[in-house]
Amino acid sequence: MSDVVIVGSMALDSVKTPFGSADHVVGGAAIYASVAASLLAAPQVVGVVGEDFPEDALELLASRGANLEGVERVSGGKSFYWSGVYDYDLASRESLVTDLNVFADFNPVLPESYRESRYCFLANIQPQVQLAVLEQLNETCFVMCDTMDYWIESERDALGEVLARVDLALLNDAEVRQLAGTPNLGQAAEIVLEMGPHAVVVKKGEYGATLVSHDDFFTIPSYPLPNVVDPTGAGDSFAGGMIGLLAREDDCCSMNLRRAMASGTVIASAAIEDFSLGGLRRLELDEVVRRYATLREIVWFEALELEAL
Amino acid sequence: MSDVVIVGSMALDSVKTPFGSADHVVGGAAIYASVAASLLAAPQVVGVVGEDFPEDALELLASRGANLEGVERVSGGKSFYWSGVYDYDLASRESLVTDLNVFADFNPVLPESYRESRYCFLANIQPQVQLAVLEQLNETCFVMCDTMDYWIESERDALGEVLARVDLALLNDAEVRQLAGTPNLGQAAEIVLEMGPHAVVVKKGEYGATLVSHDDFFTIPSYPLPNVVDPTGAGDSFAGGMIGLLAREDDCCSMNLRRAMASGTVIASAAIEDFSLGGLRRLELDEVVRRYATLREIVWFEALELEAL
Repeated sequence: MSDVVIVGSMALDSVKTPFGSADHVVGGAAIYASVAASLLAAPQVVGVVGEDFPEDALELLASRGANLEGVERVSGGKSFYWSGVYDYDLASRESLVTDLNVFADFNPVLPESYRESRYCFLANIQPQVQLAVLEQLNETCFVMCDTMDYWIESERDALGEVLARVDLALLNDAEVRQLAGTPNLGQAAEIVLEMGPHAVVVKKGEYGATLVSHDDFFTIPSYPLPNVVDPTGAGDSFAGGMIGLLAREDDCCSMNLRRAMASGTVIASAAIEDFSLGGLRRLELDEVVRRYATLREIVWFEALELEAL
Repeated sequence: MSDVVIVGSMALDSVKTPFGSADHVVGGAAIYASVAASLLAAPQVVGVVGEDFPEDALELLASRGANLEGVERVSGGKSFYWSGVYDYDLASRESLVTDLNVFADFNPVLPESYRESRYCFLANIQPQVQLAVLEQLNETCFVMCDTMDYWIESERDALGEVLARVDLALLNDAEVRQLAGTPNLGQAAEIVLEMGPHAVVVKKGEYGATLVSHDDFFTIPSYPLPNVVDPTGAGDSFAGGMIGLLAREDDCCSMNLRRAMASGTVIASAAIEDFSLGGLRRLELDEVVRRYATLREIVWFEALELEAL
């Protein structure tokens, strides 16, 4: 098992979905990804919070073996705050408030003890900040990055530098299309591959995720749930589950990328069963293994032989 | 191998996609489904065309062993005509013209030789017409039906009678949500199951399809294509491939429903590589088997063992 550096936002969220609402609860990409990864590996977390950030989320991480040396708490500062409303089918959401607060000056400095880590997830942050983190990592580190439509629009050059240096780009379907400028997802993923990463993982929400790399093509559905409560953090929990499995196996062969996506899918399914960290907090390793096995059954079908036809 | 009754529209289509256009070409649900099914079984086709319907489409079917006794040609009549335009990402389309013409009085009468068939696909038609066909079939016949948003809205009672009598309902995701009145697809499919069919197959376009039945849950992605030219007929080709495999195997166990969905997925992928019947006409059985095997590789991932973690 290897360590995993996880860099990104740590936030307070106010969320409204058709199934309820939560006010000023713990969220943020680095939090979801770290709690998700902590089921499989030891996260080394990098982020910044204000005085208002609840201690129990960090205690949860610490209790699972996470290293929090890279988490800065700004005294007198306020944590990144986001609020949003999801529509009827949870497929889209509207942001109501985005207050960067202490996250506006986020300048991630990796503690010495993080710098030889072999795995890293760079959650969605300004590409220049992602580049600054890449400078601090060992060159052999396997890096997954996320981004968002805003940076694709406004910081395409810097994002291009990031993509040229990471191993795996994790993007949702709309972002892949936007980045590539073409509607066919497969073609779009190929265009993103040409920008540098060894692999592109396209997140499709309830429709699952697809891996496109120079030597593989893989698709996995989402884990079927009777009740989705809050999709916030699904993508970051997926990413955390992925990088956690890769670090645990310490081998990024194609089959392990596939298995990492299955782990990410399963862990993300627990994240969206409740608001904030409720679902991830309750998720235990034997349930991860159970859902993983169910996913394998869900996609299995027997061969069709030409001779038999 | 068993015979398959296929009932539905036979049309002339004018289609515009971002990749080109086709004017007054052969289409219609029964045509796509029958040509698709003819790769695996012998379709017994029921439909109505006008004098303007090209002979070569029917010749193609006849050359593949289809029975066309149930196809009525109305002298002096015009065929069902549809024209539509697809948007940029092919995910949605706008209908420009729908002229029912001879299809307006479609009153399907099954020739005596069709009535003992063990498999039937009832394509999207007015539910009352679907019921009239059900009256003519042997009670042990395995029936798949399709429908559309218009009938869900305007003919819910008659559609309910159809659903109570068929074995498998084939619907797209929006139709399942509309029929069930709930956004969670899994829950919605369960509600449709309660209406009567043994199984519900949810078509999700480029995101594949999901089977929900009383004893199974299965998801399959679409077959990845570098170039999709025209999605018209994808759902009907999928249905034809499904019912064709079931008739070929003459066994509707859960695993064969899964294999039928894989066959449908593969055959539909060929249908959308060209306008009209171009793709289906070129598709040969060894290519079906090759794509089917590729699909199995695309979804495969190795187990995760608790002991190893």
